[in-house]
Amino acid sequence: MKLFFVTGNLNKLREVREIMGELAPFVEVVGMDLRVKERQADSLEEVAAEAAREAYAKLQKPLFVEDSGVFIEALKGFPGPYSAYVYRTIGNRGILRLMEGVKDRRATFKSVIALCLNEREPLLFIGSVEGEVAKEEKGGGWGFDPIFIPRGLDATFGELGKDKNKVSHRRRAVEALARYLNELRGKA
Amino acid sequence: MKLFFVTGNLNKLREVREIMGELAPFVEVVGMDLRVKERQADSLEEVAAEAAREAYAKLQKPLFVEDSGVFIEALKGFPGPYSAYVYRTIGNRGILRLMEGVKDRRATFKSVIALCLNEREPLLFIGSVEGEVAKEEKGGGWGFDPIFIPRGLDATFGELGKDKNKVSHRRRAVEALARYLNELRGKA
Repeated sequence: MKLFFVTGNLNKLREVREIMGELAPFVEVVGMDLRVKERQADSLEEVAAEAAREAYAKLQKPLFVEDSGVFIEALKGFPGPYSAYVYRTIGNRGILRLMEGVKDRRATFKSVIALCLNEREPLLFIGSVEGEVAKEEKGGGWGFDPIFIPRGLDATFGELGKDKNKVSHRRRAVEALARYLNELRGKA
Repeated sequence: MKLFFVTGNLNKLREVREIMGELAPFVEVVGMDLRVKERQADSLEEVAAEAAREAYAKLQKPLFVEDSGVFIEALKGFPGPYSAYVYRTIGNRGILRLMEGVKDRRATFKSVIALCLNEREPLLFIGSVEGEVAKEEKGGGWGFDPIFIPRGLDATFGELGKDKNKVSHRRRAVEALARYLNELRGKA
């Protein structure tokens, strides 16, 4: 089956394609950079659901969108649903600055996928991973990868390279999506 | 005439009422806490216009909304249209932290009013004031008032007290709105 992934972020497209190729290889994920306006909402769920609705209204084809963010405990959940904007402005250096001398470095990286197969309400698939904010940028990757250390590991997402896709929030959300699509296929 | 101001922010309501009372006393500004979703957009203009459209669709009465934010040069415009969220999370202390040791402290405080008198597109009235980010919080007020020093003055919005309403970005936007309403009234 062909499934559109509405995104302008090529890093996300690459990651999702790789994970779906492993977990649901019968799905062809087609990237589509359809500009949909995101609602200014304090939850990723609302942002993703609304974007999926709007994209489906335009495209009228099976599609999903993904919204993700990092929620830092000591900063009351900042940057959360505004992660992309915050990354573009103050960046990882800004986050590290806000966290200077802060002992509680706990953070959660979260991914929400909203799937629209038809006119009905989008289905949401959620993945998250606990971890902490690193004390300095380490490794490559993109976005907040160099400053997020998933719990139980000794490396940032950036340092994990391709292995990020085995443990990430996005991996977990795509797993839930793939499970659903596999079930649908079983029934068909 | 009666004009609804759709906002959940009582500080804004108080300021706007005071300024309108001076500049367009024939207008009765009625606060209405109608929850409208704000779009996640990188411009105040888009956010305000969309919120006004949505509020008008619900209320079908003459109304306006106001969106405002502070744009800090050295932080690429952060927090800008996300000012309310950023205030609720990292707050003024977070902003001061991001600006520690930063020499270029220029910032612009901007207010956008979107007015819907009928079904047509909202009219936008924009006010802004240049200034800089203080080195520490000073004075009372609300929101970013204690850390914003308007150009040419030696005090933060917070220290100005009631005088803030004589020089603020919101004052300038309300002036433009009042001018328009006065003209309309002259023609009627």
